[in-house]
Amino acid sequence: MKNIVLKIAYDGTSYHGYQEQPGYSTVEGELYKAVESTVGHKVKLYMAGRTDKGVHALGQTVNFYSNTTIDLGNLPKVINYHLPGDISVMGAKYAEEDFHSRYSAKKKFYRYIIYRGKYRNPLYENRAYHFPYTLDLDKMRKSMECLIGEHDFKSFMGRHAVVKDTIRTINKIEITEKGELVYIDFYGKSFLKNMVRVLVGTAIEIGTNHRDVDFMNRALIAQKRTSAGPTAPSCGLYLMKIYY
Amino acid sequence: MKNIVLKIAYDGTSYHGYQEQPGYSTVEGELYKAVESTVGHKVKLYMAGRTDKGVHALGQTVNFYSNTTIDLGNLPKVINYHLPGDISVMGAKYAEEDFHSRYSAKKKFYRYIIYRGKYRNPLYENRAYHFPYTLDLDKMRKSMECLIGEHDFKSFMGRHAVVKDTIRTINKIEITEKGELVYIDFYGKSFLKNMVRVLVGTAIEIGTNHRDVDFMNRALIAQKRTSAGPTAPSCGLYLMKIYY
Repeated sequence: MKNIVLKIAYDGTSYHGYQEQPGYSTVEGELYKAVESTVGHKVKLYMAGRTDKGVHALGQTVNFYSNTTIDLGNLPKVINYHLPGDISVMGAKYAEEDFHSRYSAKKKFYRYIIYRGKYRNPLYENRAYHFPYTLDLDKMRKSMECLIGEHDFKSFMGRHAVVKDTIRTINKIEITEKGELVYIDFYGKSFLKNMVRVLVGTAIEIGTNHRDVDFMNRALIAQKRTSAGPTAPSCGLYLMKIYY
Repeated sequence: MKNIVLKIAYDGTSYHGYQEQPGYSTVEGELYKAVESTVGHKVKLYMAGRTDKGVHALGQTVNFYSNTTIDLGNLPKVINYHLPGDISVMGAKYAEEDFHSRYSAKKKFYRYIIYRGKYRNPLYENRAYHFPYTLDLDKMRKSMECLIGEHDFKSFMGRHAVVKDTIRTINKIEITEKGELVYIDFYGKSFLKNMVRVLVGTAIEIGTNHRDVDFMNRALIAQKRTSAGPTAPSCGLYLMKIYY
């Protein structure tokens, strides 16, 4: 059996998240239908990172085992033929037998996009968080310095998440302006449920001067969800790339 | 009565064009409902440029007469409250009594966006023309030089269009690459029905070497629709700006 790795992009607006759930339209559900129609047999899809309802991806990674005779160069197009327009296979390759999209991942890159225009822009609807208020990006940058490295990120984890431990490592956070957009880029091996969105929501509280710069650090130390800021909306979040 | 001018943006994907048509969902239909709900009386909306089904706008301009007491600074937000998320008022101002969005326009800027990535990208779905084949942009540039100035553009007009004359002036055409996107920018006082899309379709025929560089000029001289190339898809076209 060949271990086939797909790079997947999607606009998450119409889906109830990545992971398959009976009775809901999900990215994974659509992928199962399309891949199985393409290769002609049942498969098990292994994915790199779950994404929530409304979250987008440009570099989701999925692998599965198959003996399909379809040429690797044609595989994305054939699978795309079976997929709706808001999900697309952007590349395919073979991997070693023991490659696993999630467990083999070395690093992940998530981007959060804020649109700062005065009025809502139809082209960014569901694709960025419209926040037309003053944001002090330097204060946001400064407040996030304390997050770099290995920490217990319990305060920034969505409620009802079940995990063995809440210790994670963030390698880098970068905030850049591009016209009316702000990108907040997060690099790390793995992230807790809602972690990027809670970090962004907390940073925005600081950027608007509702909280002082040290609020982030106090939230980190407190290890309580209630000590951090709100969860920023899902529409601004993109899973950009998985590094192997 | 005050003459109020609105700058409008929309994603045209879900609409049957700009202009109101009974039984169809149109941008103008949505604008009438929203503006009349806002000002509390019937209005007549004058627009700068009709756009076809699926065509987008960032700088459509509309004016109407009203005695509304709503502050100009709040007007866009109030109207947007009554509009769906894919249409948005991006600005409002007062104009002289005789200002007319179409007749006062000095120049229009249309952009056509081609997405050249190998595989379709969900974020450009319905927002750009996916054309993953080789395009010689220099040949396209060269072929379009003959279009600058005043000409009879009959060959590039959509069928069934009713107009007094087919003479138009193009001031400038610019082709620029931006990563996997190609922008083809058109500046002129006014354009015939489908004119930008037929010009793009013809230029693509030349860019793919299906036709020689002089094909554009021969099509221009022939003054017959059948001598030009096909009409490029509407999803790539944006009405960017109206100059007054």
